[in-house]
Amino acid sequence: MSRKGILFVLSGPSGVGKGTIREKLLADRSDIQVSISATTRPPRVDELNGVHYFFMDEASFILKQTRGEFLESAKVYSNMYGTPRNFVVANLINGKDVLLEIDIQGALQVKEKMPEGIFIFISPPTIEDLLLRLCKRGKDSLESIEERMASCREEMSYMPDYDYVVINDNLDEAVKRVEAIIIAERCKTRNLILE
Amino acid sequence: MSRKGILFVLSGPSGVGKGTIREKLLADRSDIQVSISATTRPPRVDELNGVHYFFMDEASFILKQTRGEFLESAKVYSNMYGTPRNFVVANLINGKDVLLEIDIQGALQVKEKMPEGIFIFISPPTIEDLLLRLCKRGKDSLESIEERMASCREEMSYMPDYDYVVINDNLDEAVKRVEAIIIAERCKTRNLILE
Repeated sequence: MSRKGILFVLSGPSGVGKGTIREKLLADRSDIQVSISATTRPPRVDELNGVHYFFMDEASFILKQTRGEFLESAKVYSNMYGTPRNFVVANLINGKDVLLEIDIQGALQVKEKMPEGIFIFISPPTIEDLLLRLCKRGKDSLESIEERMASCREEMSYMPDYDYVVINDNLDEAVKRVEAIIIAERCKTRNLILE
Repeated sequence: MSRKGILFVLSGPSGVGKGTIREKLLADRSDIQVSISATTRPPRVDELNGVHYFFMDEASFILKQTRGEFLESAKVYSNMYGTPRNFVVANLINGKDVLLEIDIQGALQVKEKMPEGIFIFISPPTIEDLLLRLCKRGKDSLESIEERMASCREEMSYMPDYDYVVINDNLDEAVKRVEAIIIAERCKTRNLILE
């Protein structure tokens, strides 16, 4: 009995802690491949092509975008970011699960192209909790926090589009829940190739 | 955000180890109610009504059966056994999950009445492994083992009717997988009552 690879999409409002959950999750397991983004941003000194990002110039990026080679893409300030479809699909075909951590807008784009993916919404216990988190982080101005709160309220409305909701009330518990979802999905009858 | 109770049905061929998995699982957690069977078999000295079984005479059992008060029922030798629907439903309404461990025939009856349940098929790694297990257990005659193997082969064909398949190649791993399924199902968006 073998099985197909599964695409797990970890998503949620900005500041909810999805990046930390992804890091803790991947630190403990080698049986899942993290998705590698393409970007037009120049590499930093310690960044390797094909490990941290697929680095490319804007012309190449736009060409790939036009050809539909990205599961999602976005412009952040002056840089472009995208999720190469080939990298994800090649892993899935090889029976390897892929983890993609991404914001809500990106997840919705991915869902259109790969609705068979497993979409996990990381939720703050309450909107007020997210406000506190962002304030404590101290990276954002009060104005930008207000903007984030407004967009968080809107983003929360996409929760029903997701397969699972994991409330990040406690980091270790949230990681355990995402791990449980991965293990459970691997046991799903429809994900097994019955011999 | 609250949620509905979920019915988890643990099933599989005879001798696959589903009873042991259930015991290990329940030893570690109090957040799931095991389903209590009704039976016409007389109680043993250490058995309590409403704890180990709901004990009743045959007339009462048949009356309940006629009224559709069992999710499934079966006659084993001269005794009747059944899963009272009310006990299960009352727990689910109270937001409590229920675990029911049962053979394949019973699980198929339950699925007809409560298709919203989560059906978990405990599978031997191979049919040969099950044969070894039954021989080692030493409880069965060679003839009955042969019969069981034949019925196991037939029972394996119901696997696609289940939501999950857990291969019992290692007891601790199998318990972990069933636990993961329980945790994951609790995070399913459709099982949450979004406020």
